[in-house]
Amino acid sequence: MGISELLIALLAIFAAAKIFGELAERIGQPAVLGEMIGGIVIGVSGLHLIDAHDPLLHVLSELGVLLLLFLIGLETDIRRLLSVGGASLAVAAAGVALPFAAGYGVGMWLDYPTTVSVFLGAALTATSVGITARVLSDLGHLKSDESQVILGAAVVDDILGLVLLTVISAVAAGESLTVVGVGKIFAVAFGFVILAVVIGSLLAPRLIAVITRLRVGKALFFASIMFAFGLAWLASAVGSALIIGAFAAGLVLARTERGKDIEHEVYDVAQFFIPIFFVSVGAAVDLKAINPFVADTRQFFIIGMLLTLVAIVGKLLAGYFAFGRPLRKTVIGVGMIPRGEVGLIFAQLGLSAGLLSAGLYSSVALMVMITTFVAPPALRVLLKKSPQPPDEHDSALSDLVTEALEDDDERRQGERRRPEAAVR
Amino acid sequence: MGISELLIALLAIFAAAKIFGELAERIGQPAVLGEMIGGIVIGVSGLHLIDAHDPLLHVLSELGVLLLLFLIGLETDIRRLLSVGGASLAVAAAGVALPFAAGYGVGMWLDYPTTVSVFLGAALTATSVGITARVLSDLGHLKSDESQVILGAAVVDDILGLVLLTVISAVAAGESLTVVGVGKIFAVAFGFVILAVVIGSLLAPRLIAVITRLRVGKALFFASIMFAFGLAWLASAVGSALIIGAFAAGLVLARTERGKDIEHEVYDVAQFFIPIFFVSVGAAVDLKAINPFVADTRQFFIIGMLLTLVAIVGKLLAGYFAFGRPLRKTVIGVGMIPRGEVGLIFAQLGLSAGLLSAGLYSSVALMVMITTFVAPPALRVLLKKSPQPPDEHDSALSDLVTEALEDDDERRQGERRRPEAAVR
Repeated sequence: MGISELLIALLAIFAAAKIFGELAERIGQPAVLGEMIGGIVIGVSGLHLIDAHDPLLHVLSELGVLLLLFLIGLETDIRRLLSVGGASLAVAAAGVALPFAAGYGVGMWLDYPTTVSVFLGAALTATSVGITARVLSDLGHLKSDESQVILGAAVVDDILGLVLLTVISAVAAGESLTVVGVGKIFAVAFGFVILAVVIGSLLAPRLIAVITRLRVGKALFFASIMFAFGLAWLASAVGSALIIGAFAAGLVLARTERGKDIEHEVYDVAQFFIPIFFVSVGAAVDLKAINPFVADTRQFFIIGMLLTLVAIVGKLLAGYFAFGRPLRKTVIGVGMIPRGEVGLIFAQLGLSAGLLSAGLYSSVALMVMITTFVAPPALRVLLKKSPQPPDEHDSALSDLVTEALEDDDERRQGERRRPEAAVR
Repeated sequence: MGISELLIALLAIFAAAKIFGELAERIGQPAVLGEMIGGIVIGVSGLHLIDAHDPLLHVLSELGVLLLLFLIGLETDIRRLLSVGGASLAVAAAGVALPFAAGYGVGMWLDYPTTVSVFLGAALTATSVGITARVLSDLGHLKSDESQVILGAAVVDDILGLVLLTVISAVAAGESLTVVGVGKIFAVAFGFVILAVVIGSLLAPRLIAVITRLRVGKALFFASIMFAFGLAWLASAVGSALIIGAFAAGLVLARTERGKDIEHEVYDVAQFFIPIFFVSVGAAVDLKAINPFVADTRQFFIIGMLLTLVAIVGKLLAGYFAFGRPLRKTVIGVGMIPRGEVGLIFAQLGLSAGLLSAGLYSSVALMVMITTFVAPPALRVLLKKSPQPPDEHDSALSDLVTEALEDDDERRQGERRRPEAAVR
């Protein structure tokens, strides 16, 4: 892809993102939903204007999700994140265990081999922190307690997902796994985040002291970007994920005295790249592969719907593992639903290892697609009506009832708060 | 190149750009000189940290120069540009004719075939508007009369260079050329800019009226970026250059009521991409190919120095064709010296067409390199000492004398003005 083709692709991406983002906002939905639908319209299921699997677009979209997580990290107060740490860990652990068991069960029930069933279970585990964070931010809700639990759980989820991915890849490659080996993978994954935050917190103030003495233009911006890119690269090099490193970089820099300035400096560049990610997510959706009106693809549509069902129920139940303080557990559960790119990475690995057929791959893709697309409007419904802290009756039903009783005025206040959201 | 490799490459590029940019500023040179030297340090002649010819980096660096020219266009008042249009045209025409004749003469004198000599001449013609504009901006001098002449002439030069490139490519490919054919190429190249500005000026206010009614985030930013990408793509599609289209887009949007807002919105994203271009220019420099201490490469070093000499003298003389009002003609001539990427494009075309040997290619590259690297410090010397309008004695000598007599206070004022420059 040369520069001319890239310009055309970016024109299509930005046009799709902004036209459908605008339409989404006009019907009261988060802009990110519009961006993903815009991606379907211009992608492989629609006008074929872009190919989400093109290496150049793929790299730019990865820069997008990396910068998104960096920005989310910059907006996150690590003390608040840790204050709900217990709840996050419980939600994350349940949110991996329940969907994994359910997916594995579906596989075994359909008489697939054990390895295939393990793959199906694994593909259901990881929450897409990018999509959830973006929705919460679009709705101006990133700072609520529930959002902190979701964010923390989604990051832990991503790490657990990576551990699972490493273990399963080793099994798929025929390697034998020891308890020590699995323990090591665990230690590296969690150790990285802890070390990154601890060492980063020691280094960041010195970095900023140096920057203030520089004359060259935009030193703070470039130092911050380099810090984020460096940690992202390091995370990926030690076997964690790029986005985990970028999020850790944001957490660390948010605590420095220039945290707000950095957020401001990075914002515009992040906005350039972020839509490339979300439009690509939509553009990669191939609706033909799960067409329920064609005999060949119908069974995979049905399996996909089954996986979707257990994927949603699994995460909803996981939300109820949030303990410690009054929290709207349905909001947390719904926030954990979108699987996004991580589920697709699992599925692609299974496809290339020969464990998933092209049909089963499409079933997983359908599950990813539906979970990703239902969460934004569902969160919108739950959050739109209660921008205030929850009352003690924190069951889902009483939540819905109290929310329904709230008057229009408060809803408008919630909407007026939206433009403050930094990530849109 | 995957995302991990890209992150490492960007880390190296940003570190080189900012460390050497900082050093350049500390010794009173434009930051862009430091960025190019930083590129040499991390490129093929140095640490081999990046490969400037990697397709992904190449595309990102082209986005950089495109956004730079867009930003320069946004900062340019088209009426002022046209008010010195006659001088610009004269400088441009002389700046193409004189170096072409000199390069052709050098080739014939060295007994090269006519086609080779034509190529050598052509490689000397086009000024790199990107490098010159960046230097003028780094020095806070983008708004002066001389800068307007240089900018106008460099754009015309680029268009003339493209015409020459098209003609020579056709000859190299064995096509026969008619006067009508050449005239058509001319008409397309200049017609595009005129049409783009006229039609763009009619469309832009309507575009902005639509944008003000949108709710989606950063609509002005994305509309402007899409306008620039669209015109750049169009320019390239009709046989002009991307950067000409981007510059025209900037000129058009600068005239709308939101011109200043757009400049502000686009600024940060442009700053992200621009260093990638300048570091890549340095990283592509292969010093080994023109080593004067090795017998094999010595002759190409000497030919390169000869080409450099006529390249510099040709553009300096062209500066004296600026007429109409008191202008510092040496400043204009020096501003036209850097050949940058356009000269290299000519040379690469000659190399791949088999007309230039690898040795002669290196000679041209040496010319490009020296002209590109001498102009920033030379302009710095000329401009640092006279931030004020020139007096009537507009010869180079009297300029230097009067400048030398100016006191330190005024110099500091000139420096204090620098942070206002938008493109750094």
